[in-house]
Amino acid sequence: MRVLLHPAEDEIRLENLFHALSDPARLEVVRTLIALGSEQSCNSLGEAMAKSTFSHHLKVLRESGVTRTRVSGTHRYVTVRSDELNRRFPGLLDLVERSGPPTLTEAAAAALSAARA
Amino acid sequence: MRVLLHPAEDEIRLENLFHALSDPARLEVVRTLIALGSEQSCNSLGEAMAKSTFSHHLKVLRESGVTRTRVSGTHRYVTVRSDELNRRFPGLLDLVERSGPPTLTEAAAAALSAARA
Repeated sequence: MRVLLHPAEDEIRLENLFHALSDPARLEVVRTLIALGSEQSCNSLGEAMAKSTFSHHLKVLRESGVTRTRVSGTHRYVTVRSDELNRRFPGLLDLVERSGPPTLTEAAAAALSAARA
Repeated sequence: MRVLLHPAEDEIRLENLFHALSDPARLEVVRTLIALGSEQSCNSLGEAMAKSTFSHHLKVLRESGVTRTRVSGTHRYVTVRSDELNRRFPGLLDLVERSGPPTLTEAAAAALSAARA
């Protein structure tokens, strides 16, 4: 199995987080994950994008420390590293969350409405 | 006189701020400006960098809305748009300030010690 690299909490650098979040599509993915509040399947989260594009965005988010990707069989699941980021750079995720509502994909909207039901 | 473009407060976009702050040198310039707390001459602020490199960084910071550049004769002065940024994206500048002490240039260190005297 391919090992996915994640920076340790104390290796997360603010400039790398800023870089990861400077792309509108990646910012949108993070806003959606924050709104959903739980781990999401990469398949459903990336349904609106070309697979290679979405994979690239997830890699940048993961390598900067914004997200954690978990592999289970042939599936991947992604989550925001909220606890670690809130400890290390308090206010960053609030800023992202407050900056606008996510434009959810259909699957994400369904997951969100299920989570709120 | 060449007109320097600055985005209006309501045109400032979070992803553009993140992009501007994703470069270590630019992040450092902003940290230094925050620490100094007042408008600085571009000549003294950029003394540690090649002039063209520093000009480019100042352009990116200005066009994203992080800083305001004022031209006076042949001199340029730069300041962080703190009031506007704190209204529009509260927490962003705190995050930058808290992320580490600035590694000041000699001129900036002198200005800082003068400001604190």
